[in-house]
Order: sequence, then structure tokens, then C-alpha cells
Amino acid sequence: MNSIGRHLIMTCFGESHGRLVGVVLDGCPAGLPLKEGDIQRELDKRRPGLSELYSSRAEADKVEIISGVFRGYTTGAPICMVVKNLDVDSSVYEEYRFKPRPGHADYPAYVRYGGFNDYRGGGMFSGRLTIAYVMSGAVAKKLLSTIGIEVYAHTVQIGPVKLDRKPTLEELRTKVYASPVRCVDREISEKMEAIIREVKSRGDSIGGVVEGLAFNVPPGLGDPLFGSLDGDLAHLLFNIPAVKGVEFGAGFRAATMKGSEFNDQYVYRGDRVETLTNNSGGILGGLSNGMPISVRVAFKPTPSIAIRQRTVDLREKVDTFIEVKGRHDPCIVPRAVPVVEACIAFTLADHCIGLGLIPKVLGRKS
Amino acid sequence: MNSIGRHLIMTCFGESHGRLVGVVLDGCPAGLPLKEGDIQRELDKRRPGLSELYSSRAEADKVEIISGVFRGYTTGAPICMVVKNLDVDSSVYEEYRFKPRPGHADYPAYVRYGGFNDYRGGGMFSGRLTIAYVMSGAVAKKLLSTIGIEVYAHTVQIGPVKLDRKPTLEELRTKVYASPVRCVDREISEKMEAIIREVKSRGDSIGGVVEGLAFNVPPGLGDPLFGSLDGDLAHLLFNIPAVKGVEFGAGFRAATMKGSEFNDQYVYRGDRVETLTNNSGGILGGLSNGMPISVRVAFKPTPSIAIRQRTVDLREKVDTFIEVKGRHDPCIVPRAVPVVEACIAFTLADHCIGLGLIPKVLGRKS
Amino acid sequence: MNSIGRHLIMTCFGESHGRLVGVVLDGCPAGLPLKEGDIQRELDKRRPGLSELYSSRAEADKVEIISGVFRGYTTGAPICMVVKNLDVDSSVYEEYRFKPRPGHADYPAYVRYGGFNDYRGGGMFSGRLTIAYVMSGAVAKKLLSTIGIEVYAHTVQIGPVKLDRKPTLEELRTKVYASPVRCVDREISEKMEAIIREVKSRGDSIGGVVEGLAFNVPPGLGDPLFGSLDGDLAHLLFNIPAVKGVEFGAGFRAATMKGSEFNDQYVYRGDRVETLTNNSGGILGGLSNGMPISVRVAFKPTPSIAIRQRTVDLREKVDTFIEVKGRHDPCIVPRAVPVVEACIAFTLADHCIGLGLIPKVLGRKS
Amino acid sequence: MNSIGRHLIMTCFGESHGRLVGVVLDGCPAGLPLKEGDIQRELDKRRPGLSELYSSRAEADKVEIISGVFRGYTTGAPICMVVKNLDVDSSVYEEYRFKPRPGHADYPAYVRYGGFNDYRGGGMFSGRLTIAYVMSGAVAKKLLSTIGIEVYAHTVQIGPVKLDRKPTLEELRTKVYASPVRCVDREISEKMEAIIREVKSRGDSIGGVVEGLAFNVPPGLGDPLFGSLDGDLAHLLFNIPAVKGVEFGAGFRAATMKGSEFNDQYVYRGDRVETLTNNSGGILGGLSNGMPISVRVAFKPTPSIAIRQRTVDLREKVDTFIEVKGRHDPCIVPRAVPVVEACIAFTLADHCIGLGLIPKVLGRKS
Repeated sequence: MNSIGRHLIMTCFGESHGRLVGVVLDGCPAGLPLKEGDIQRELDKRRPGLSELYSSRAEADKVEIISGVFRGYTTGAPICMVVKNLDVDSSVYEEYRFKPRPGHADYPAYVRYGGFNDYRGGGMFSGRLTIAYVMSGAVAKKLLSTIGIEVYAHTVQIGPVKLDRKPTLEELRTKVYASPVRCVDREISEKMEAIIREVKSRGDSIGGVVEGLAFNVPPGLGDPLFGSLDGDLAHLLFNIPAVKGVEFGAGFRAATMKGSEFNDQYVYRGDRVETLTNNSGGILGGLSNGMPISVRVAFKPTPSIAIRQRTVDLREKVDTFIEVKGRHDPCIVPRAVPVVEACIAFTLADHCIGLGLIPKVLGRKS
Repeated sequence: MNSIGRHLIMTCFGESHGRLVGVVLDGCPAGLPLKEGDIQRELDKRRPGLSELYSSRAEADKVEIISGVFRGYTTGAPICMVVKNLDVDSSVYEEYRFKPRPGHADYPAYVRYGGFNDYRGGGMFSGRLTIAYVMSGAVAKKLLSTIGIEVYAHTVQIGPVKLDRKPTLEELRTKVYASPVRCVDREISEKMEAIIREVKSRGDSIGGVVEGLAFNVPPGLGDPLFGSLDGDLAHLLFNIPAVKGVEFGAGFRAATMKGSEFNDQYVYRGDRVETLTNNSGGILGGLSNGMPISVRVAFKPTPSIAIRQRTVDLREKVDTFIEVKGRHDPCIVPRAVPVVEACIAFTLADHCIGLGLIPKVLGRKS
Repeated sequence: MNSIGRHLIMTCFGESHGRLVGVVLDGCPAGLPLKEGDIQRELDKRRPGLSELYSSRAEADKVEIISGVFRGYTTGAPICMVVKNLDVDSSVYEEYRFKPRPGHADYPAYVRYGGFNDYRGGGMFSGRLTIAYVMSGAVAKKLLSTIGIEVYAHTVQIGPVKLDRKPTLEELRTKVYASPVRCVDREISEKMEAIIREVKSRGDSIGGVVEGLAFNVPPGLGDPLFGSLDGDLAHLLFNIPAVKGVEFGAGFRAATMKGSEFNDQYVYRGDRVETLTNNSGGILGGLSNGMPISVRVAFKPTPSIAIRQRTVDLREKVDTFIEVKGRHDPCIVPRAVPVVEACIAFTLADHCIGLGLIPKVLGRKS
Repeated sequence: MNSIGRHLIMTCFGESHGRLVGVVLDGCPAGLPLKEGDIQRELDKRRPGLSELYSSRAEADKVEIISGVFRGYTTGAPICMVVKNLDVDSSVYEEYRFKPRPGHADYPAYVRYGGFNDYRGGGMFSGRLTIAYVMSGAVAKKLLSTIGIEVYAHTVQIGPVKLDRKPTLEELRTKVYASPVRCVDREISEKMEAIIREVKSRGDSIGGVVEGLAFNVPPGLGDPLFGSLDGDLAHLLFNIPAVKGVEFGAGFRAATMKGSEFNDQYVYRGDRVETLTNNSGGILGGLSNGMPISVRVAFKPTPSIAIRQRTVDLREKVDTFIEVKGRHDPCIVPRAVPVVEACIAFTLADHCIGLGLIPKVLGRKS
């Protein structure tokens, strides 16, 4: 249940306020050059900056590679990577133990685990577990780069503010992490920041949308039925906490479209088959069609808000109120961007290994 | 790749124009009363009626239970169920063999399977494979009924026409399949029919949205991380051909909401914990919270249209045109309704068996 | 539970006295030439001949390929194959319904499935289910033959009669199925036949040992830890009914050996690394080492015997007696030979696909 | 590939000479009291004592529980447990890098991983990885104890010295770990010790057999076909390095038996169904039958011997010689005893959780 993938498999462990968050990545081909810096670069994209836009929990999030790498190369053995929790303050959580925070997993987790779950900081349900996804995704991105596949994600909406145009590949490569909200357009980015500041000032939070894109994906990637690329991507993306919707290409807009509008018609560009439009988001029948894969992921507003809300006392069995303290991001979206990126990279790498596009051994050690 | 589920597992096989479509359902508890009529009732919901709204392919879609049932009860052995293909006309497909139909899986499947795939009627990529989901879902619904869980789906949008209100439980129980487009509201239903007739008259097609709902789901169903209820539901739902988006509760609307609006606040209703709103669609942290599960599924317009489209000739490597013949539904949505229902039922039954809410043996034979 | 394999996956269904026995084989590469004759040839090896050495149940065991093959080639879609049960006589089984036959699964199955299991002919626990293994193995053998791997099995022991020498490759290719007991040595074969006739004449049965061998297996096949070649082989072999032991190479004899005797020392034969002995049976650390894989499989005597035995009446809860009627092989070993062969072939093909030694598409269709 | 189990799942990582050996145990019910001492007690059984019978590598093998336990109880989250490697001396292994040690995985691993595998101390192929099995088994034993199942293992053969009688339950409970070779019979134990000393004095090694036993296993445990209890046990047991054979009950002796001798006849003992003999080793048709489960596991002699052996130089492609240095157990059997115990406990706990015999939550926290 805490493992995902068919050929490249990640098994996550750890808790928000426990000792660490970790992942065991199984099935990574041998011979991939890998150092902690490769992982750290991706983790740093997920770290909150020194800004009022983010949580004040000050975690260095330093990765340690525990196994599976020997003298700078992956060995084919499972790669264990961990990030220690250093700045933990669990004091506020005793209050919530029997008073579930609205929008969090507290109540169903209490029922599911009979009260034995680690409720501090959400325990295993915390967004902090996405560190594991990012670590796996970092390895996946290195694997994909050996065959030229590039994966990006960026913020396209925060509350009512939307990026309505398509980003260029150049913007995706250079502008995303230059923006504190991970939006490639400077003006839009500033409006998004303003929204976050505003909701934060009122003790509130806000949702948004992240778009993920993958380029140079060869056609024919994916397996029929339950090994479809979109099914596998959605499966993993919905396991990012706070995700409430996933759509590919035209997505929900497809509902209003006619076949003559939606269908992506084929043409040759030199030897290469392309489509005139990309309403299918690069996936047909669960298989990549050679066009960029595009997926949009809707995030709900951070559930932890300072505003008074109704809740119940599960021990006393009475109605009560709660004001959620602790250190929280007023908008989860900017920090979710590298997580979406990681999930896409992981899923694509899993399929590329499965189809033999990435071999089981990269080169031969001399 | 053609199997899904952890405790209740379905393995699908067959092709659109092959001998049959079948499923092996593994992990079904012993002792469930099961007869072909139970399956047939669900299959009949998926069959095209005698109407211009549907494809003219006239399949009886009669189920045969091949194994796993003995004297009216499931035995605990795998249940194989099949539906034969009777009204097959593959003549038109020779033309498309090297001319991929836009919007279909033809092109990536040709690449993926080296031209060996059965291209007649889309082969294993055909929507006809959803017969397997419906057969499994029929068993799942019987399993869920033993613990009071009810699953419904209905059409909420076709093209621009939307059902903007919540259906009552009574409507879901009695009105869905009384409507040719599976919409509970008669007036809206008629508008939807009109839209379909209109696009059909022009050789075109149209998309739409199906909403799925599950009632009486106990809180705490689901597993952490990759066994989450929403991840599992989305995984299966995206494996229904033509699905381009899946959202739970407020879904993409959550992106524009503040935490103070989105969060579902808790109250006691007698002994039962409920929430004042259901923006989370009954799922928090991947676990059910006891409220109705609600999911919306966006379908693209049927790719097969009579209108001339650009495509390529993969053998000659030149651009060309195509007008897709054959018998197709101008809108897939009405027929997708029982499929969405089946997918939800299957996923919930899988989790209920996993948690022991549905035991491995139902009663004891005397 | 009724599926096995990681890249090549078989899902079995059916019962001894139900309509049929079938298998869905998933993950078979596209482009393999496959016709029913390929499967039938292997099934025929498993069929009881017209001899007193075998059960008198007269099944033609004719295979039908239901899906996954199109115009003589595999398509990449799941291959469903079935064999109908024609000569079914369930009359004797009513007596055993609450009187478990010693040595059969009757009693634990009754407990496990609450009395709902199909008890006729052992239901899903019948050796007849191995038809599914043989059908899958037939496809696997064709896959392996594309890279030169050959798999054989033969009888090395029945009761006290043993074949004490190593068979030649030529004998394995031509002599096994010429012997009614599947023993390559004519003299030993006759002694084995005599033993079987003798126990049969007394209403009794006898056990034996089958040896499986695979040649031309490249070194390095297998995955670490739980994907080991020997672990996977044993897992499947123990799922052949009546198997009580599995050993590789020197097997249990290794317990009495010193390292200096057991270790297979390396030498170059031209460019090829070989070992002077093969006590490891071609597997080291779960990986093939390039030497022939050899495994020995111990079978218990057929549990169905005409001799009076003690048993219990589960309904009356009293001790009683039983004399098992029905049509049974007095020794299961000869018919198990092609099953062992099939299991080895299946497991090797699964690993070869996983490592990319057998590609996902065999050739390209013109 | 480094994960095993269906409901209780262990994922192993680490290397012999890397930083540590670890395991992530997923699916453990919430509410099990668990402390490091529970794990340490089992690990201590596996540690080499201060004796010439064992390797001189002096590892404390101290367990650390990293996740999944909160205030003394399992939380339902994955349990990560690690043991650090402290006494590592990799100096000798440089010599073996291109000179594979006979009997070890060196050569096939070199081929499989293109020379990138961590060859120090066998890397991930080392017997040291069985620490992960023992840690998981320790948790499994605690789970099993909640329903009264007891699991034991003991040495029944080292070289030519055999324990020919059945041990009593009392002996299994108290005598196994009092013997340095893990044999319940003092006299036999001393003979076994003498054998080990003798082979060691000559730089040689010796094999042996471990018997595993499980008591109070309820009838009906196991799943049909590929979820059989014996198949699952064998799968895991063959993943203990150096195992060459596994047999249940009469095992290979069954080959020489008649049905009338082998069949375990049923009788009532009060309300309980028992069998007069236990040739089936407690398993029929893959299901437990309520009698003690008995399995025998053959271990080859330790491959590392000081005696000169032939090998090859893979870089120079010439024949050469090797004398294996390093610190090795002259007989692996005594240290394998707790590993066999762990593997049996793990597999039984996995099945008990799957069938709901051990619930997903043990009690409810107040």
C-alpha cells in the first residue's frame, strides 16, 4: 500500500514529526551516475523559502543516500534515501488528538487506525511525505534524461488568478523556480503572491492548479487497460495530499467539445507524425502519441487555517470548535510544483524501464 | 497490466471484433448468491437502445458465467464471465489499418505493438472492453449491498447542457435509466437528447460529464499513500476509454476556494459524525470520511466522426484524409454511466474486502 | 491469488467438473507466431494415454484460443486459452461432500470456503487446473525458443525405482514422451511401469520425482532477493498439486557436502565461463550462472486410493471410513512431467521478458 | 523485486559492507505493542557468538525502529527498521572484483549488473541481508502470538550428523538457542560442533538442514493456486542465501511412499479434526489442515573457503586460482535457524492478516 510502480517501485516511510521521511527505490537500472547533489537540487525546489508565502517550519531537508549507490553509480540494488526531521514542534497537536481538524485526514485516520496513528503533524498523512516522491522523482529525471525526456511543472492558477497562455519550453527551463509561486509569467506571479498574502493576513488559505508537461516522450509508451499512462499518472498524482482533480489535455473542457473540435488530426513533420492540436494531452488509449504530455492538477486550499471552525470532540462525543495553530503554508501550490514534476517523471521512467527504452544496465563499468 | 485491484482483482481479456469480451474476477468471497441475471441487469444498462442516440451495432450482450459459481453461490474460486461478440462487421477497418483515426489509439497502438495489434474496431482499446468492468461491477454491487453501500452514476453534462442541481437519492434509484441519456431531470434530459441528435445529424459527436456517488460508505475506508481511495478510483476511472478528467467533491473548483470555504466542518448528528458541506467528496487523506463519495468524470466526444479529417498513411508516409465509417455512438456518455457505476463499486468492494468489512466467506453452507 | 508472474502473468480459472479450465496470459510480446497446434502439442503430452497406467477419464483436452491472437500472431493483448471439460462424472462426489478424502484438500477447503467450494473432483484444487500451466508454458516455450533456451523434464524416480544417470540432451529431446512413464531409459521405464501396475492392482498409488532442466540460459537471469530465479521457480512448482519437495542442483545432498566438494569452480571454455561441476543447478544468489538449470520435484502418491481409510463426517461430527472411487491415475508423476516443463518455461520466459532478453515486440508486421 | 508478501509486505535494502541493512514492513496492523527489545531478541539469536564456530566479524547488530511505532504501539504506517554495519573490512574484496568466488553470486551478479554492483562482502547478495527477514519475522511472531500460533526452527543435520527424532514442543521452546549449533539434543549438538570445528581446521565448510515448525495454525489458511501456503513459504525460504532444497512433511520421502502409507487419515479428537500422521506437513492443496506445519530446508556449505579453487579473471579472460580470505562462518546453518523461523512467521502472519484472522487494528487506544 505504501509502494507504487511496476518496474521502478518506490516504497515510502516516515512521518511528519517522526525521525525522518524516507523512500526505498527498487528497480533502478545499474550504472546511473548518482550523487546526493542530484537529489538535493530537486528537494531544494520543494523547500519553503524565507518568505511569508511559506510555512515557517525551518527544515534543511538534507538528503542522505543510504544504499544502492557505490562509488558514484547506482548498483541495481534498492536505493534508500532519507531526509531527517529536525525542526519538529508537536506541542500543538495534543489539542487536536480527539478534535479532528476539518479538511485533514484526522477523523478518518482515527477511525481507520483505532486511535493508534501518529497524529502529530498529520503523521503519515502529512504533505511532508512528498519528500519521498521528490527523491524518487530526482532519480527518475536522471533516468529520463538519458533518453532526452524532459519533465516540467508550473503554477497556472492560484485562487482566481490564472495563467492563460502556454509557457514556452525556455520559460519552463528557466523561469519556474525564479518565481516564489512557481509561475513563469512575472506579472501573473506577482498577482498570485498578492492573493496568498491577502488570504494569509486573514488566517485563511487558498487553492490552485499546477500543470505538468513532458516533452520528447516517444509514441507508444504505456500498457493497455490498467497499465495506461493516464491511469498510472492519475493514480500517483491523487496520492499527493490536497489534490482534488486531475485532467489531461483539454480535460473537463472536452465535455463541451465536438469531435470535430477535439480530435487531434495527424500530419507528417518530416519523418515524424505529429498532431495539429493537442487536446488529448499526448495520450490516446492510455498510450503516449508522441506529443507533449500535459496534465493539470487541482489543489484544494491548505486545510490548516487560523479561523474558528466547527468540529467535534471524539472522546466526549460533543460538538466543539477549533482554531488550527502550527506552521502552515497558506497555499500549498508553489511547493506542490516540484512534487507534480516528480510524480510525472517517476511514472514515465517506470514505463520506459518496462518497455526497455531505458535498459537495465546503463553502460558497463570498466 | 490487464489486472487491477488488490483484494478483489479483475483480469480483462477479449477484443471488440474478436470472439468475446471476458473477465476473471479473483478474490470474491465465497457464499455470495450470484446468477447470470444479476450480471445481465447491469449489462443491459450499458446496451444501446433502439434509438438514433446510440450505435446501431446490435449486440445482445448476454453474459455467461463460466466458473466460480456452484449451485447459485460463489465458491471462492475465480469467477470467469464472458459476453460473446455477435454483430461484428470488420469490413471498414481494413481501410484504417495504416491510416490512424484521429482521437483513437490507432497510431500509438501501431507503434507500441509493431503493427501486430488487432486493429478491427479498436481491438483491445475498444470501449467494448468496459463490458468486463460492468460484469465485475455487478458482482461488486452485490457484495456492497450486503453492508448497505449503494453506488450510482448519472449524466450531469452533455456538451453545453448541464444538470446544475443535486439529484435526490430517490431520483438516482429510479430515474437514471428511465432517461435515454441517463439524466435524472426530464427537462434537462430532453435538451441533452436534442444536442446529441443535432451533432449526429452533422456527422459529429459530443462530450459530457458523468457523476458517480456512493452512499453509506463507512468512515476509514482506504489505505495510506498509494492505496488511497481517490487514487484507486481515479486509476480505474481513467482506464475507461475517452475519460479526460476526474475530480472529487469540489474538484477543480477547489482551486478558487479559500480554506474557510472549502473545509467541511464536523458536527454530530446523533452518534454519527457528519460534515456540514461535502467539498471533499467524502474522501480525506485518501480515506473515506463517512459522507457520500462523489466523483465527476469528464468524457471527450466520440472520436469516430463522419466529417473529413486530416491523417497520415503510415505505410506510404504521406499526409492524407479520413472519414470514419462504422457504427458509433454520437455521444459515449449515456453508455458510460453504468461503467462509472461499476468502477466505483469495484474499487469500494476491493477496499471493503481488504479491511474485512466484507468477510471472506458470507455465511456457511448447510 | 490466481495470478502469477511479474512480466508474463498467468491468471487461471475453472474447475475439474465445471465447464472448462482456462488461463489468461498477460504480457506476452506481440508478434509471436502462435496457433492452437502449438498449445495442443504440449497438452497432448499431459493427456492420459489409453493405458491402465492412467485415469480412465477420457478428455480430448482440445485447446481453443479465445483472444490475443490475430491472423496467426500474438497481438500484445491478453491471450485467453481454454479447454472444455467433456467427460465429467460427478456422481461419486456427493458422498465425499462432508467426508473429506485423506490427502486431498477437501477438509481445509471446506473450512476455508465455508462449504461453498465446488467439491466435485476437487473443484479448483484439482490437478486438472495444471492444464492452465501447460497452455501458458506452451507459449513460454515458443518465446524461449526465439533465444535458444530449451526446457525439458523427465521422470527420475517412481517409488523405489530411480534413474541414476544423467540423461543426454538427445534423450531429452526424443525419448521422454516415447515412454509411458516419461523416463528416457527404456529398462528403467519398464520397471517404473511395473511398479505402477502393481500398486494399482492393489487399489493403491505411488509417488515419484521429476527432474526439470533448462539449457542455454544466459548468465545473469534473475532479480535480487524476492525475484530470485530459484524462489520464483519453487513458488510455481509448489503450486502443482501433490508436490512435496523442490531442490536445485545437489539439493538436499548439499547438506552433507563440504564447500570444497560443492563449490562449482570456474574455467574458460573459449570465451565462455563455465563451471567444472553443477552442484548449484545453474543458480547462484538467485541468478542463473550460464550452466544448465536443474531442479528436482518430489510428488506424493495420488491421494485417491480404493483402500479403506479412516476419515470423519463433518456434518455428523463422527469418525467414519472412506473408500475413494472415481477415475484416478495410480501415479501422478508421468502426467506431471509436462507440467514441470511448463512451469520452468513460464518462469524463465517471465524473467527473460523482464530483462529485455525477449523484446516486447518480435519483429514488425509489414 | 525486493518486496515480498501480499498483506504484510517487507521491502529490504542495504548491503553487507554499506551503511546498514534495513527493511520497511508495510501492512502491519495498528495497535501492536512493539519495542526495539522485541526485535533485538530475535536478532541476537542470529548473531555469531564468541566462538570459533562462527565468523569473527563482530557486529552488535543493534536494531533501530525508524518509523511506524508511536508511544510503544504500531500505528499502521510502514515500520522501518535498520541495523548499522559497524565492523566492515572491505580490503580483501578488491582482489575478488574480477575473480568470482566459486559458489557465490559474484559471477552472475557481475554479468547482471554490468560490473556496477557493490561487490564488497557480496553486496546485496550477502547473507547479512537476512537481518531484514529476522526483523520482519520478529514483528510477525508478535502478531501470531495474539492468536496463539507458535513458530520454531532448529538444526536437524550438519554434514553427516542428523537428529533423527522429533523434538518436543518443550525442547523447541527452551533448548534450541542453548545449543551453539541450534540443535535440541545435547549429544547430537556436540557431534555437530565437532564436525564444524573439523572442517574449519582444514579451511573448509559444511552444509546442513534446518527444520521449521508452526503450531496452532488454524485449518483453512492459504489461498488457492498461487497464494498457497507451501508455495509462499518456499518462495521466501529459497530467498535465504545458500538454500538448495525445501520440502514439506515427508518431502522427498513421499516419492517412495504408497498412498496408503502417505495419506494422513482423519479422526476427531473431541471437537477437533486431526490426522493420525502428518506426512503432508500440515498443508493440503496449499491450505493448512490444522496439523503442525513442518518444513525442512537444505543449506549448502558456506562457499567461502580458504582452500585453493579454480576460477577465472573476467577482465583478463584467463583461468586463474583463488583462496577466499575474509571472515566467514564455516557452517551457515546455526545462524540460519532464526532466519527460517522468521520466514515462516512472516508468511503465516501475511496469510492471517489476509484472511482477517489478525484484524487490521488490535484493540482501540483510549
